[in-house]
Amino acid sequence: MAVGYNQLPPLKGVNGIRIGVASAGIKVKGRDDLVVFELSDQCQTAAVFTQNAFCAAPVVVAKEHLQAQTPRYLIVNTGNANAGTGQRGIDAALLTCSTLAENCGCQSHQVLPFSTGVIGEQLPVNKIIHAIPKALENLSEDNWNAAATGIMTTDTVPKGVSEAITLDGKTVTITGISKGSGMIQPNMATMLAYVATDAAVDRATLQTLLSKAADKSFNRITVDGDTSTNDACVLMATGTSGVHIREQSKNYHDFEEALARVCQRLAHLIIRDGEGASKFVSITITSGSTEEECKQVAYAIAHSPLVKTALFASDPNWGRILAAIGRAGLENLDISGVEIKLGETVIVNHGGRAESYTEAAGQMEMSKDEIDISVNLGRGEASTTVWTCDFSYDYVRINAEYRT
Amino acid sequence: MAVGYNQLPPLKGVNGIRIGVASAGIKVKGRDDLVVFELSDQCQTAAVFTQNAFCAAPVVVAKEHLQAQTPRYLIVNTGNANAGTGQRGIDAALLTCSTLAENCGCQSHQVLPFSTGVIGEQLPVNKIIHAIPKALENLSEDNWNAAATGIMTTDTVPKGVSEAITLDGKTVTITGISKGSGMIQPNMATMLAYVATDAAVDRATLQTLLSKAADKSFNRITVDGDTSTNDACVLMATGTSGVHIREQSKNYHDFEEALARVCQRLAHLIIRDGEGASKFVSITITSGSTEEECKQVAYAIAHSPLVKTALFASDPNWGRILAAIGRAGLENLDISGVEIKLGETVIVNHGGRAESYTEAAGQMEMSKDEIDISVNLGRGEASTTVWTCDFSYDYVRINAEYRT
Repeated sequence: MAVGYNQLPPLKGVNGIRIGVASAGIKVKGRDDLVVFELSDQCQTAAVFTQNAFCAAPVVVAKEHLQAQTPRYLIVNTGNANAGTGQRGIDAALLTCSTLAENCGCQSHQVLPFSTGVIGEQLPVNKIIHAIPKALENLSEDNWNAAATGIMTTDTVPKGVSEAITLDGKTVTITGISKGSGMIQPNMATMLAYVATDAAVDRATLQTLLSKAADKSFNRITVDGDTSTNDACVLMATGTSGVHIREQSKNYHDFEEALARVCQRLAHLIIRDGEGASKFVSITITSGSTEEECKQVAYAIAHSPLVKTALFASDPNWGRILAAIGRAGLENLDISGVEIKLGETVIVNHGGRAESYTEAAGQMEMSKDEIDISVNLGRGEASTTVWTCDFSYDYVRINAEYRT
Repeated sequence: MAVGYNQLPPLKGVNGIRIGVASAGIKVKGRDDLVVFELSDQCQTAAVFTQNAFCAAPVVVAKEHLQAQTPRYLIVNTGNANAGTGQRGIDAALLTCSTLAENCGCQSHQVLPFSTGVIGEQLPVNKIIHAIPKALENLSEDNWNAAATGIMTTDTVPKGVSEAITLDGKTVTITGISKGSGMIQPNMATMLAYVATDAAVDRATLQTLLSKAADKSFNRITVDGDTSTNDACVLMATGTSGVHIREQSKNYHDFEEALARVCQRLAHLIIRDGEGASKFVSITITSGSTEEECKQVAYAIAHSPLVKTALFASDPNWGRILAAIGRAGLENLDISGVEIKLGETVIVNHGGRAESYTEAAGQMEMSKDEIDISVNLGRGEASTTVWTCDFSYDYVRINAEYRT
């Protein structure tokens, strides 16, 4: 069960986007595992992809297609990541695109493919091709909730959020869905997110907005530090609300913030549903020299198995946090200027345990489901926040028992 | 139980080094937890210390003392790391040194202090001071085995090795002991190693030899990526064998190799006795552009919780190794040139699963206690090897249940 999240709320449709969902029977018969997004011809699309050098075949193809033309369709399958599959994998992704294009009367380059699931097995492309007409049959604006379920792999709950904001006196909707957490299940390939809005945004601005939002959300979460081969996040803007978002316009900032909120929510849901997660942990680093060094410290804490097992045990084991900060590789860190807090409780200052600290206070903070660790580096103006979860028996079980 | 290692062999004494062991009752009454090394006045000493910014009080003091004078005594306590203890911790370390110096008629600066154990609690300095005379009473050349036990914290076996080599027609002995693994137990502070030889080596050469040997041994092992606040390795050369080792001399290379073997053995023993370890894993990266990038790839694999849980499960889950390589951050990595092997079995080449690969072959390799992962990056001449262990339920248990 996800930490502090039980149920997908009803998601608002976005005018100009229709979604079709079908079962291709890739892993489990009858389970929806194929999702098609149809984008109106006015729709602009931006995307960010995994930085993993071994990126999956659909990532290679989607990047190329996005470069070449304005997308009209996205096609997502779960159950197979089409990663580590060589040229045959590329061919399979291309065949998926061309088949969908033929069915819809668009160019093959106007289709972006996405896959998530087992790495290293060839994509069962015939099953997918066979299911495409079924997905197209039920295209509808109201299928976001079904899509959130359709893109799940080992997620325990579907993940999504809608936000409506008023800009220029009109309502603008932003709706998004996401799946995955870390490399959730052995060979399962990670995070996908699809966000759409009816605001009108040109392509370049949309890419800027997405990159910035991802940097405050999807690029600030970690379950186990393992970047998958298939990560992707897509932002679509149909323009049907009639509200134009331009970098100079007054509404830009409000839209940017709303988009960041949606992306953060989707990212947080991934962590809340992390493998074996029993805690949702926010790590905030302040007063760093640069944002880069704040990230270094935040990830040193977030990736420390010792910190993560202490979080699982609700153990206020501040020595581990301190040691993680110390090994983060910051030049000339003056440890006497570093302050560490758990929630509002100061645990470390002046290079050692805070005089006011009591084990009881630390214990109280650590026993919560949602834990805030904050570190003041005392040497600058930069800051960042990273979100993670704890490290439990279940993490080992999930990752050791799959396939065996 | 340690992987492939059950028992400490008898260790050879090193002429010019006497060792005293006592119980100060720091954590458990009656258990040896205090070790004193007495170094002859001809002895040269070199050391390497943790890079953690939050280095412990004894590390601060030992570095300063080593800078100031030639050491005559080392004093090591277990049960308390004297880390995160602020000025009071420094004072306690200094008091330990001055008390030992008074007892022995040397300068306080000629004593190097070392501590390992719980972080963040003040050192029970009176207990230590009280036990110093007891340790001095049983100073003996033959106490290496007792010392190996005396420096243990949560190690399951004492760790040590002796090597005798013939140089210039004479026998030169190198004996070493080590303790700890990763941050073995919550708040337990890691790795200590003491190595002595009766070769004659000047201070500068000794430091060079130690740094090089540590770089091929202690600096290439990882349990969980957490560098402790207290890591230290000391190399002592008494000169009593009459064999002089100089950088230009013919025997230099042989001595260098023997020292590296001793340090590697001590380092490997730490991994074999890693927290919850059930596998001893060697990760060798070859044909990299630089040693640095080989290290990057090796550690990306060694620190991946997904790879480590697969190792625990004896699961030939090569997609996780591939994904770890892909996210190691190498610029312009041509994945089609990368070859991954498990033992002698090729699992990945040409950007995907090797055609010759069978799950049965992979399974056979992964079911061994000692596993070799090798990665050929296909783009240069550099190489490196890193050693690690798997990630088991016991790791979570050991690290989550301590203190609770």
